[in-house]
Amino acid sequence: MLQAPKHQVAGHLASDGKLGPLVDDSGRFYKPLQGEGRGSKELAFYETFSSDTRVPDHIRKFFPVFYGSQLLEASNGSGLCLHLVLQDIVSGRINPSIIDVKIGSRTWYPEASDDYIKKCLEKDARTTTVSLGFRIAGLQLYEGKESGFWKPGRKEVQSFKVDNVRSVMRRFVSSDSSIGNENPDCSFAPSIYGGPAGILEQLLELKAWFEDQTTYHFHSCSLLILFDKESVLKGSTPVAEVKLIDFAHVLEGKGVIDHNFLGGLCSLIKFVSDILSESKESSIKANEESEKPHNCTNNGNCT
Amino acid sequence: MLQAPKHQVAGHLASDGKLGPLVDDSGRFYKPLQGEGRGSKELAFYETFSSDTRVPDHIRKFFPVFYGSQLLEASNGSGLCLHLVLQDIVSGRINPSIIDVKIGSRTWYPEASDDYIKKCLEKDARTTTVSLGFRIAGLQLYEGKESGFWKPGRKEVQSFKVDNVRSVMRRFVSSDSSIGNENPDCSFAPSIYGGPAGILEQLLELKAWFEDQTTYHFHSCSLLILFDKESVLKGSTPVAEVKLIDFAHVLEGKGVIDHNFLGGLCSLIKFVSDILSESKESSIKANEESEKPHNCTNNGNCT
Repeated sequence: MLQAPKHQVAGHLASDGKLGPLVDDSGRFYKPLQGEGRGSKELAFYETFSSDTRVPDHIRKFFPVFYGSQLLEASNGSGLCLHLVLQDIVSGRINPSIIDVKIGSRTWYPEASDDYIKKCLEKDARTTTVSLGFRIAGLQLYEGKESGFWKPGRKEVQSFKVDNVRSVMRRFVSSDSSIGNENPDCSFAPSIYGGPAGILEQLLELKAWFEDQTTYHFHSCSLLILFDKESVLKGSTPVAEVKLIDFAHVLEGKGVIDHNFLGGLCSLIKFVSDILSESKESSIKANEESEKPHNCTNNGNCT
Repeated sequence: MLQAPKHQVAGHLASDGKLGPLVDDSGRFYKPLQGEGRGSKELAFYETFSSDTRVPDHIRKFFPVFYGSQLLEASNGSGLCLHLVLQDIVSGRINPSIIDVKIGSRTWYPEASDDYIKKCLEKDARTTTVSLGFRIAGLQLYEGKESGFWKPGRKEVQSFKVDNVRSVMRRFVSSDSSIGNENPDCSFAPSIYGGPAGILEQLLELKAWFEDQTTYHFHSCSLLILFDKESVLKGSTPVAEVKLIDFAHVLEGKGVIDHNFLGGLCSLIKFVSDILSESKESSIKANEESEKPHNCTNNGNCT
């Protein structure tokens, strides 16, 4: 019953006979071990991390549950291949809106090969990685039953500038997230970005850990933010989540904090909190407007 | 009455007929405008910053007071040259111990020339800039009346690895800071790094501003930490200070936080707080030891 994930927004896709991850209907995600040693490094990370008693319990929720590894038929028909067995983090969600954010102002690390560093440096400077401390690596925004998802292609996402990133982060929490809408209302910001279980609080919880932990340096790792727009529209309490994925380039921290990840995370936090503040201000403004007598104009002069 | 500063630990020195800053005996520091447009950029920064009402008052203490600019005879005898007139931040201090920390895991910025970027990248990777998010650019540690200052040369400082940096940060607050001492006692850590007016609190105050301000990006800027060891030895309340200097590469933030500076600052904070925690632990241990009856051995068995 294995199939390609419906809601994958970045990375290699198991479609058209290519090698990519698979999911089953029990909520597990099978990720084939990547080449050039990356896969075995990621497996080693999950093994170390899952038994690392220094990681606080409240931080584990940001990582997919690790169930070990398993030999499975690869999606590209190349035969048996070792897969990481992980929690499928979108299992149970109907139409999740997802943004995949690659965190850090630098995706390379000095221990890597010169070629790898050069490739990363060029992409970091071309995208918002250097300027923002993060870049969007993929996304899907659910617009509604008729229009479905807005899921721009890889090239379009890679061409995002700072303004596009800000716009995507606003549209993510807007009732009308279609491209044509140049002034998204951010009406879901208070319930998705804000609140005690919202994205901002989760990011701040993660930040506090990164200010202290000196065990792992997460290079080129992705932070997903996701929620179900339909559940908000239906009036049920939305569950907004932050998850970290992709650990093929995790290095030992050796007593130093991951300042590269932390700096990018703080930059993302500032974007989220700015959108949240704006949405609160505009809702106060709207309330003030609605409390004014109807025969008053905007400048307060009664007609 | 102009002369070369006694306590300059990094940058160009006004000695042997070279161009460098000068000080007078009224507490002012005269910095000649650097070439290749850097000097005029730094002057422009000071002019903008000093009249920027968005900068909170409690943040201004981290910057030298700016008194404008003045034409003065250059220290290299090349004639009149425009100088920045700044507060001499070590004026009034007798034998200050100083560490000059260049903050950020990246000293370059995409707008710079390819040559400049290449030069910075190489130096960033060779020093602790990439690994730690900061590097020590210079220092002087006062050891006492007889031995005077330990002030390693530029080449030695540039060769510092992570362990050297940690060692310098420990020796900075130790009663015996000489090189021969491999296990510095960090006995001044509680009064210099700790306490309500200590270095750690000041760094945290600065951090809170950097988490929010999106106006300035401080590339290749130095953070000085300094105090007078003699005043501690004499039992008077030590005044430990944090100051930012060197603003020739400050760029507009354009609504994005300075994640590069912030990440490095958080890394420095972790170093300081680790040394402070260790020194507290060892002082608790020492107290416990001293409270034991003298005929008991370390493992608690009485002889």
